[in-house]
Amino acid sequence: MQIKIIEVGPRDGLQSEKAFIATDRKVRLIDALFGAGVRSVEATSFVSPTTVPQMADAAEVLRQIRRPDESVVSVLAPNVRGARDAIQAGADQLVAFVSASTTHNEKNLNRSVAESLLNIEAVAELASQQGTPVRAAISTVFGCPFEGDIDISSVVNIVRTLGRIGIRQITLADTTGMATPSVVRAVCGSVRSAVPEASLSLHFHNTRGMGLVNVAAGLELEIDAYESSIGGVGGCPFAPGATGNVCTEDLVHYLHEEGHSTGIDLERLVCAAWLLEETLGRPLPGQVMRAGKRLRLYDAETAVAASAR
Amino acid sequence: MQIKIIEVGPRDGLQSEKAFIATDRKVRLIDALFGAGVRSVEATSFVSPTTVPQMADAAEVLRQIRRPDESVVSVLAPNVRGARDAIQAGADQLVAFVSASTTHNEKNLNRSVAESLLNIEAVAELASQQGTPVRAAISTVFGCPFEGDIDISSVVNIVRTLGRIGIRQITLADTTGMATPSVVRAVCGSVRSAVPEASLSLHFHNTRGMGLVNVAAGLELEIDAYESSIGGVGGCPFAPGATGNVCTEDLVHYLHEEGHSTGIDLERLVCAAWLLEETLGRPLPGQVMRAGKRLRLYDAETAVAASAR
Repeated sequence: MQIKIIEVGPRDGLQSEKAFIATDRKVRLIDALFGAGVRSVEATSFVSPTTVPQMADAAEVLRQIRRPDESVVSVLAPNVRGARDAIQAGADQLVAFVSASTTHNEKNLNRSVAESLLNIEAVAELASQQGTPVRAAISTVFGCPFEGDIDISSVVNIVRTLGRIGIRQITLADTTGMATPSVVRAVCGSVRSAVPEASLSLHFHNTRGMGLVNVAAGLELEIDAYESSIGGVGGCPFAPGATGNVCTEDLVHYLHEEGHSTGIDLERLVCAAWLLEETLGRPLPGQVMRAGKRLRLYDAETAVAASAR
Repeated sequence: MQIKIIEVGPRDGLQSEKAFIATDRKVRLIDALFGAGVRSVEATSFVSPTTVPQMADAAEVLRQIRRPDESVVSVLAPNVRGARDAIQAGADQLVAFVSASTTHNEKNLNRSVAESLLNIEAVAELASQQGTPVRAAISTVFGCPFEGDIDISSVVNIVRTLGRIGIRQITLADTTGMATPSVVRAVCGSVRSAVPEASLSLHFHNTRGMGLVNVAAGLELEIDAYESSIGGVGGCPFAPGATGNVCTEDLVHYLHEEGHSTGIDLERLVCAAWLLEETLGRPLPGQVMRAGKRLRLYDAETAVAASAR
């Protein structure tokens, strides 16, 4: 199957970094991702710089990156003001968030789910006037750290409402790593039969080690778009020390080994992960960036790598 | 499905630790595993103490652990001398090794595959006289770091030879994390149709992040026994910094969430992982030991854990 990888590391991964990462480092990372053949990158977030100082250089990042043909640079736009700035800065796609969990939405976005959907409607209206597509990401669909399992009907209702607003690109997000293959099958299966016109992408975290088995469950359902994070960068506020997003190069390695295509050059992608590791100055959770491809061979005498990574 | 977990951390995980771990620490770890409901533990190795000093206290470990009813304490016995010592020390089961790769076998065991099989035959003969069962572990069956892909017919031939020797319990081992779901399906499928009387268990490494997707492929084939390592302890000599064995508590969490039974109490198992982390004095690769079960809930006001782990 042809799989679309949506790289979210520059936004979802880096936003939790405390020390400010220089703009040119962010730009080099995104350029390296493009160089590896990644074509969809969630590059930054047009949020208040007081709330998320790490993303204060959003417009500058968009200005400096060198976008290849057919690339889609998406950015997080939490409100109409952010959406306007993002479109002006040249974003190809806006991403709007809402949580499937009432408690999580109130805690995270400080408003009710209904208010969030009205806000998304306003963002979508502006974007539509400017001809910029909007993707919606629904968080905690596979479980909420406050409410536990989420009623699938509330996920379906949100997807339906988004459809009425005109948003068909939907990311179902496992915000704190609570998805399991059974839950993925149940939620995605129900959403697909209820709203077959929605174009689904899945966003998993590896918080409990189940990132790739959840992708496998998505593939069984023939879902062909996955969000992931270079080097596995990112984290979970509720699990100090736990890993965050599914790691892009581990995901791509797995997909290629299983016969899927991504259009990505894995060796170059690993170089992007090394670049990020150097920038952050600490080991990242990615595995393939250390171990290499499965058929990386070694000389039997010296046990030194004898084949390309 | 009822799944048998064979805990190999005390042997496969600890043998690569450079600093000697005090015998009473090893004993406490194994007792903690038994206390969590684990019933099959590969406890130690009866090798030359000059070759593997970490396992020099093999007999003492067996003497001190408190074995519950129905527990099976297996030990590695690389030759007749080790087998004799192991049986005398009270091992319930011996484990003999051979590699599916000629190069790996020669490098690792310093003899040809045929010589290894003759050696296993001698071990099995002695064990049979003493009424002690033998399990054989075939390493590199899903790929060899020197030879690459392994001809499935050589794996099948080894399993057949082991059957003639009288060994039906076979572990197919992914020594350096080269297995993928496709390779697992191909190798295990062929072995099962060629030697249906073999009782298979699978041993995966998470070196390239695919530990659990490979288990999922094994489960599809209804293979019901898996080797894993508490805390994910262990490593891969060819990938410095890469993780080693599939982590027991992450595996058990996944299996329970998918509706399988293991007879293991996950919370107590996590305590055993914490104990090991304390003993080794460094973070282990396990995820669930940090994040807790998926339905661990948090108080929305304080974001402090509100439910049991």
